[in-house]
Amino acid sequence: MAFEIKAKIANFGGQLLKLEHQSTSTKTKMALNLFLPPTPISHPSDKIPVLIFLSGLTCTGDNCPEKGFLQPHAVKHGIAVVYPDTSPRGAKVEGEDDNWDFGSGAGFYVDATTERWRNNYNMYTYINEELPLELFKQFEVLDSGKVGITGHSMGGHGALTIFLKNPGKYLSVSAFAPISNPINCPWGQKAFSGYFGEENKEKWAEHDATELVKSWEENETLEALIDVGTADNFYKQGQLLPENFKKAAGGKGVQVRYQEGYDHSYFFISSFAGDHVGFHAKYLCN
Amino acid sequence: MAFEIKAKIANFGGQLLKLEHQSTSTKTKMALNLFLPPTPISHPSDKIPVLIFLSGLTCTGDNCPEKGFLQPHAVKHGIAVVYPDTSPRGAKVEGEDDNWDFGSGAGFYVDATTERWRNNYNMYTYINEELPLELFKQFEVLDSGKVGITGHSMGGHGALTIFLKNPGKYLSVSAFAPISNPINCPWGQKAFSGYFGEENKEKWAEHDATELVKSWEENETLEALIDVGTADNFYKQGQLLPENFKKAAGGKGVQVRYQEGYDHSYFFISSFAGDHVGFHAKYLCN
Repeated sequence: MAFEIKAKIANFGGQLLKLEHQSTSTKTKMALNLFLPPTPISHPSDKIPVLIFLSGLTCTGDNCPEKGFLQPHAVKHGIAVVYPDTSPRGAKVEGEDDNWDFGSGAGFYVDATTERWRNNYNMYTYINEELPLELFKQFEVLDSGKVGITGHSMGGHGALTIFLKNPGKYLSVSAFAPISNPINCPWGQKAFSGYFGEENKEKWAEHDATELVKSWEENETLEALIDVGTADNFYKQGQLLPENFKKAAGGKGVQVRYQEGYDHSYFFISSFAGDHVGFHAKYLCN
Repeated sequence: MAFEIKAKIANFGGQLLKLEHQSTSTKTKMALNLFLPPTPISHPSDKIPVLIFLSGLTCTGDNCPEKGFLQPHAVKHGIAVVYPDTSPRGAKVEGEDDNWDFGSGAGFYVDATTERWRNNYNMYTYINEELPLELFKQFEVLDSGKVGITGHSMGGHGALTIFLKNPGKYLSVSAFAPISNPINCPWGQKAFSGYFGEENKEKWAEHDATELVKSWEENETLEALIDVGTADNFYKQGQLLPENFKKAAGGKGVQVRYQEGYDHSYFFISSFAGDHVGFHAKYLCN
């Protein structure tokens, strides 16, 4: 459904809109942020390209606009940035608030199939279909033909899988410290067991970037930019496994950069936000 | 006392150090952040100039490094940034946690004189004497002769008053939405009544930027950069009164910019952080 604009906040010459709407995918109210660069924009298109930023575990759509510092770079390139939430909230699913890495704040950008979760936990459809549909309907200044996707940690998993499952729909993909092979890490195994059931391994593979990239058209390039910090404890614990994704992608052009001494926090995201927005701009702003 | 380094976080090529030490001024443990740009630094000095950022009501030293976006500009100019806390914490003063605008998180950068507060609430001495003394002792790479001061809201009041009370000690001053005339606004009146007593109006004036600037040496310039958002509700409510400061400063060179549509938040600070760090760099980096 249409968005209610709860607030407009001036930022870097553009505007951060705090939005809320009732979602048919999650059957809950969903809050998000939309950053609009100042107009006229700095590139030749008459509409504004869109970069979707998917956040990680425990986050809402508020954390990244406050701490990620994509906005000054979005202004430079004339790109809008959408910051959705990471799960339904207040869906009244039993146990949804019991874990920080499953349920609320941890929707994993999938459509759940298990009885308990499937009525509300449909973040894949929400992000990939409902949200853009409503955004382009209400904000006609946005260019529905120029959409890129990025994200952090669980949101990096979301960005990679949503991009790979929809060839041609998104013009560019990047990720900050993504969960790159969830079927082989504790976070992913916990989430997919819960949302799909332990036995439903076919469904697991459908939302695993490393599995998906194997069937990405052979010989076709996949120019993705991925940054991972070498001091990232979750990387060290084997939750991210970007090396598996890189290996599965073979020679397709995936760029994984290991950033010396960086951790998993927004201090890491903000430090490389300029590189990522600039990377997307190559595909979105021409 | 010496700082314990609790964490080192990579950020924008530099390092954010999370520090903690026992303070003789406040008789409590004080936490703060110190951002060090990468070495070698980008200007000719062999030591790193320092910019002190004083935060506003309710904040700790953590908010601005996460949300204020000074660091990339500090890297650009080769400046270190210090983010102290805004009050003692856990001093066990009766009622210290009862108000968001007085007591904890609201030290107002004064040395209290009233019985209840004077043992611990000595943020003026802490910021102006103890903290720099300890910093320059432990971090020899910092340049004790090149220090600038800035801040937000209550911290803007702190920056202006500390600068004005110590001619020559700080090379530059700026402020984001400062409480510019506390003796004439509700926040300041509440704080000064509590810390100095209602009758002690002489002491009040000693910590009022608008009063202090009147006795700033006549004909001497005071190049201060002040930004205030026109959509700042605290400005509209008369808590900031930058116009009083500007008027009292006369033709001394104070620059007050009213930024159209900006509010009081870190979205405002981050948007103009580059201008402020660049302003200080003119005085600190040569």
